[in-house]
Amino acid sequence: MTRRDTPRLIALDWGTSSLRAWLLDGRGRVLDSARAPMGIMQVERREFADALDAVTAGWPQRLQAIASGMIGSTRGWVEAPYLSCPVSLGDLASALVPVPGGRLWIVPGVIRTSDVPDVMRGEETQIAGAIALRSDLGHGARFVLPGTHCKWVDVSDSRIKTFATYMTGEVFAVLRDHSILGGPAREATPDASATGGSAAFLRGVDAARRADGIAPLLFSVRALEVTGGLTSGESLEYLSGLLIGDEIRSALAEPAGMPPILIGEPALCARYRRALSRFGIDGAGEVEGTAPAGLFRIATAAGLIEAATEAEP
Amino acid sequence: MTRRDTPRLIALDWGTSSLRAWLLDGRGRVLDSARAPMGIMQVERREFADALDAVTAGWPQRLQAIASGMIGSTRGWVEAPYLSCPVSLGDLASALVPVPGGRLWIVPGVIRTSDVPDVMRGEETQIAGAIALRSDLGHGARFVLPGTHCKWVDVSDSRIKTFATYMTGEVFAVLRDHSILGGPAREATPDASATGGSAAFLRGVDAARRADGIAPLLFSVRALEVTGGLTSGESLEYLSGLLIGDEIRSALAEPAGMPPILIGEPALCARYRRALSRFGIDGAGEVEGTAPAGLFRIATAAGLIEAATEAEP
Repeated sequence: MTRRDTPRLIALDWGTSSLRAWLLDGRGRVLDSARAPMGIMQVERREFADALDAVTAGWPQRLQAIASGMIGSTRGWVEAPYLSCPVSLGDLASALVPVPGGRLWIVPGVIRTSDVPDVMRGEETQIAGAIALRSDLGHGARFVLPGTHCKWVDVSDSRIKTFATYMTGEVFAVLRDHSILGGPAREATPDASATGGSAAFLRGVDAARRADGIAPLLFSVRALEVTGGLTSGESLEYLSGLLIGDEIRSALAEPAGMPPILIGEPALCARYRRALSRFGIDGAGEVEGTAPAGLFRIATAAGLIEAATEAEP
Repeated sequence: MTRRDTPRLIALDWGTSSLRAWLLDGRGRVLDSARAPMGIMQVERREFADALDAVTAGWPQRLQAIASGMIGSTRGWVEAPYLSCPVSLGDLASALVPVPGGRLWIVPGVIRTSDVPDVMRGEETQIAGAIALRSDLGHGARFVLPGTHCKWVDVSDSRIKTFATYMTGEVFAVLRDHSILGGPAREATPDASATGGSAAFLRGVDAARRADGIAPLLFSVRALEVTGGLTSGESLEYLSGLLIGDEIRSALAEPAGMPPILIGEPALCARYRRALSRFGIDGAGEVEGTAPAGLFRIATAAGLIEAATEAEP
């Protein structure tokens, strides 16, 4: 193992349902990675140390470790209080909270205070990583992080200025699994969605785009099934389009001036890109590998490790 | 039993989850009533006749019977195809569908056709009943029927002109029971909502009233809990306010010119009345007993029974 490949940091994205870990060298390059269904809802508090040992088994145990995500919530290992917007990478690095024992540090979340507040844990680190990977984005960009709780994050001057959370992924899942809208599709044969799914998705996006809120549209999923306008297989694609379309409509009420940057699962980002195009927004960018990049940069800024310079042999 | 009290009709509101039955005299007065958890999702198709016998046990079996609701859907006993708006009581009466055997007739549902269609089954009969009970409402009124799938129905010239369905009740239930928003409240002690519930409800209504859609607000239920702005017990009241407030905001985008008329469970109607007042709408009316009244009038118009006249002894 050359010095370039020397492990320097263990980086953790420790969320509600899963724990992802990366072994990084002194330049932040990924030497190894691991993933386990050991989110904070799956693991008892007294078992966090064991979970960490399990997912990093075989990696050097003397290394410093840094974690972002729900592990810093009140239900996590140690609470890392929220920082208020605007928040820079340096602010995050200055506010790391140590887990007793001295090996692991937790990145704080971010809060947007107002009558209707909003919070994030984990995404702030991904944003820091995206800016580290693409320094041009620090000047000013809007990021979209699709998922269970999709975040729209506005960055300028390398700081998170404001953000909004859309529960699009979770709302879709609970309506699919537990409401009348998902019933027929749950009983449909798996291949029923093979045809027409994409058109049904865009039909949903367009309906939401032309409306001023999702409330009077949701039941149309059912009404279209009943009247033969959608097959059961297509109906969930239409529902997905309604929800993502309504999210985009709402988020674009505050114009950004440039196409957003997507961060997330490629298939989900592709879905958002198709929906954005219905709003006349093409050319949305994408950044990958943001979580380990952000964790590495924050750890470096905090002095947990000494980053290798380009000049290093 | 005097002639006035002679049973003339069995009226049924047969929905997804329950079956309500009334024994009516020749003026449509309720002589007896019954209710059973024998909705079409609880009863197999071949058992509908037994369910009807069970809920009407002890009532004269020679009477004609009329039913509205999901019993007329494709999953019901016999399908009663939708009539397109505008629809009058006479239209409904002319389109009754007999169940083989000759004793029971089913009221059709109503459809609003468009790119984003909407359907109802059962509410059309309640509207017919409301107009029968309050003839002034036939000239022009907007009805609101809160519930699992809340309907806003515009009537003029004694016809259902248009309507919209809001899944407010079902969305609330699935978010409460299956999403992160209900988690803390599900774990809270039952008395946690005793204080502040009403204020939290109105706070949610106000937040939705000032917004242009619910999408960026839902997560504030969670964010307010996390930041101490709401107790776990209050959070579901706030969520209820958000959803009902968003429904009202959306529905009022099409002004009606007069306060709406509420039809439904008194406690739920009271909740809607409090929310409406935040939109500056006071004096919403209420009509009770609409289902048996509507069923009676439709049956009479269809000639299933001969209505007793006021002159009848």
